[in-house]
Amino acid sequence: MNEVIGLLKKHTSIRKFTEQPVSDEQLHAIVSSAQSASTSSNVQAYSIIRVTDQGMKQQLSVLSANYSYIVECPLFLVWCADMYRLREAYGKHEQDEPVYIGTTENLIVATVDASLAAQNAAVAAESMGLGIVYIGGIRNHIAEVSKLLKLPQYVYPVFGMCIGYPDQQSAPRPRLPIDAVLHENTYDPDRMMQPVEDYDRTMKEYMTLRTGGKRTSTWTEDMANKLKTPARLHMKSFLEKQGFGRD
Amino acid sequence: MNEVIGLLKKHTSIRKFTEQPVSDEQLHAIVSSAQSASTSSNVQAYSIIRVTDQGMKQQLSVLSANYSYIVECPLFLVWCADMYRLREAYGKHEQDEPVYIGTTENLIVATVDASLAAQNAAVAAESMGLGIVYIGGIRNHIAEVSKLLKLPQYVYPVFGMCIGYPDQQSAPRPRLPIDAVLHENTYDPDRMMQPVEDYDRTMKEYMTLRTGGKRTSTWTEDMANKLKTPARLHMKSFLEKQGFGRD
Repeated sequence: MNEVIGLLKKHTSIRKFTEQPVSDEQLHAIVSSAQSASTSSNVQAYSIIRVTDQGMKQQLSVLSANYSYIVECPLFLVWCADMYRLREAYGKHEQDEPVYIGTTENLIVATVDASLAAQNAAVAAESMGLGIVYIGGIRNHIAEVSKLLKLPQYVYPVFGMCIGYPDQQSAPRPRLPIDAVLHENTYDPDRMMQPVEDYDRTMKEYMTLRTGGKRTSTWTEDMANKLKTPARLHMKSFLEKQGFGRD
Repeated sequence: MNEVIGLLKKHTSIRKFTEQPVSDEQLHAIVSSAQSASTSSNVQAYSIIRVTDQGMKQQLSVLSANYSYIVECPLFLVWCADMYRLREAYGKHEQDEPVYIGTTENLIVATVDASLAAQNAAVAAESMGLGIVYIGGIRNHIAEVSKLLKLPQYVYPVFGMCIGYPDQQSAPRPRLPIDAVLHENTYDPDRMMQPVEDYDRTMKEYMTLRTGGKRTSTWTEDMANKLKTPARLHMKSFLEKQGFGRD
């Protein structure tokens, strides 16, 4: 195992940060690393909003789930899937409205582009001793968040990211056994479930230990609960309003 | 700039590979790195299909865009967004059909999870001297690809990835200037376009040089053409058939 793989494997989400700021040089290294990720046909269909205004961070925290770390982290980035820049590129050459924009394919491309870039940013940050946590919670009130950030048509916020020097330590959380996620040639649903049951035991022990017995649920119990609970059912209509999701 | 950031910044897509195989140990390091990426509430909503069957690689190549490197690369992975495993987890505890599965929010979560994992895999591979290229082309005939891989409901192939030892060298392609992708506090459409024009000049020079004058188009011209061209308009109906895309 080389050092890079060692770095990737020791990742844990950090939700408590020291007051030490992230320098402009570090920000540039992070964004530049993000930009080096693969992008579909060089479309680079994402934008990053760096939120420096403390009042805005406060509002984003309230709109997310009252995570204090959004306010406290020295660097908060919102990663947006962005087809608006392409719309503007089109407008430089054509007078009419583009026909093939906002397709479901566009939505996938822009979401993937934003995610690949963000993960490179996460790795770059961690390589400098910084810690990060992704904030899917910014989709809780995605319309209000988008209004606050003044996102135009064809742009949507995929997730936030808190970055800063860690003020906590934790060991990586166990993941599913490799045989539960890696298939050969075809998807094999039967072969997958035994490792999932092994993982249930691993996670039950891990959670019991970590929460001092307060949480003892297994992974499949947690996942079953997830599928019983309504979550962000506004996403489809919001994305349609932003111009995404046609054929 | 540290070594990790140096590695990220020198990324280029590799489409020509030597015959040297990727070892099982390397495969495990790649998948294990992928699994260490952040995942929304630990759902780990992705699966990886390693295609080892040469006949299947041939078929996937034909279905993608006849990329010979899908057949030639020593390791070909298909990254799938996967809510089926959660459906099975639910089935371990409940008799009925889950209510909140296949939502647009699920689609975003699973697409992001697959992408973050894949980008960690890409970084891990490159850290071992391997090269990679993402294959969005597997969405060209996504229904046929899904049938070939026997993907169940609630699973869709997001992209493929060729991995192997590089048999070509190329310099990283210039990306948009940082001011075209990074905004402060709010999305600023006006501030963005000057750097885009600078990039047009950069890319025109780069493409002219790289193709010996065969391609001299600017980035905005390429993007305008993209929005004039129908691309994978089957995605919406395909995803709906796979169970994705309700509210």
